[in-house]
Amino acid sequence: MSKELKLYCFAQSGNAYKVALFLQLGELKWSPIFVDFFKGETRSDKFRKINPMGEVPVLVDNNKHLSQSGSILNYLTKTTGLFEPDSEDRNLEVNRWLLWDNYKLTPNLATGRFMSLFLPEEKRDTSVINFLLERAKAALKVLDQHLDGREFVVGEKLSIADFSIAGYIFFTDEFNFDISNFPNVIRWRDRLKTLEKWKHPYELMPGYPLKK
Amino acid sequence: MSKELKLYCFAQSGNAYKVALFLQLGELKWSPIFVDFFKGETRSDKFRKINPMGEVPVLVDNNKHLSQSGSILNYLTKTTGLFEPDSEDRNLEVNRWLLWDNYKLTPNLATGRFMSLFLPEEKRDTSVINFLLERAKAALKVLDQHLDGREFVVGEKLSIADFSIAGYIFFTDEFNFDISNFPNVIRWRDRLKTLEKWKHPYELMPGYPLKK
Repeated sequence: MSKELKLYCFAQSGNAYKVALFLQLGELKWSPIFVDFFKGETRSDKFRKINPMGEVPVLVDNNKHLSQSGSILNYLTKTTGLFEPDSEDRNLEVNRWLLWDNYKLTPNLATGRFMSLFLPEEKRDTSVINFLLERAKAALKVLDQHLDGREFVVGEKLSIADFSIAGYIFFTDEFNFDISNFPNVIRWRDRLKTLEKWKHPYELMPGYPLKK
Repeated sequence: MSKELKLYCFAQSGNAYKVALFLQLGELKWSPIFVDFFKGETRSDKFRKINPMGEVPVLVDNNKHLSQSGSILNYLTKTTGLFEPDSEDRNLEVNRWLLWDNYKLTPNLATGRFMSLFLPEEKRDTSVINFLLERAKAALKVLDQHLDGREFVVGEKLSIADFSIAGYIFFTDEFNFDISNFPNVIRWRDRLKTLEKWKHPYELMPGYPLKK
């Protein structure tokens, strides 16, 4: 692994935050490279050479350019040994929740937030936003039941499942997305905040506040 | 690994097909357990004891109950050695495309298909369906560019990235989802069909045709 990792990111990206939080809590040496998403930089030809999928985060480790937050998290935990589960069964559980997040929670929560908060009002389609946020709530219901009596998503230690699921969970106040029906999710989120070195996405990554 | 694996599934589930296709092409011994999704079985208390996430597929290997197709595919390739990439870099690429599918392609394509095809007409929200299918097309565009000049998603052999991405690709005719703008995707899909032992989801899993 290189002496200093670089992360293409911006403050408002929960997907980039998933990786930034690993780097921060794992006390790895890294620096952010700001990507001006709101000016279309992720869709530029220049950025597509860095990641043909046209998305942040991208982690640079020597000559490797890694993308997809879940894939980067797998890479980081395997390469550094940090936050690794303590058994093969728990490893499977971590993987399961990581995929669940990528399939069930984040696509709905991230897109619902984006459309609620960052799209110009005339482009907001209320039925699409409601659809996405209802699905996010259905996912949070499953998560809330799972977190009942648990400190972390899997086992008794922090893992990449927590990092992945936490991606968009610190943004919910911004767009009045009500998570009060999910007390275990709130408790878990608030515990993450108490971890040494924890930082909110807006403190951890560049680009906040947005320039209008 | 147990002598005979069991897979909770139903014919119309592309997510179950991802796993069934691995089992079939890998010539593993397995049998399907039919789940009557369309009668609400995945949401029943009985099924939630099998998978609290309330979804198929669930793979049973001895006392292990595995869920989330991507996680099951990781488990199968690691446990059996079948379809494993031949380098660590390719392994990362496989993982990246697997997560990409779970985040970008399948949630949109599967849900757009479900709403177009299986919801009663009065419950179909056209703006939501269009939104989902447009996002699926944006994902297929990225995939099509990637598949240009390639036989498989990663490297020169079949991997779990192909299985995952192929989940819903054999259903597109059913609901007039036009993929003619993605010739490399069509070529790749048609090559999969020529693989020995390949079967369409409706032949491989129980529950087709639907009883009305």
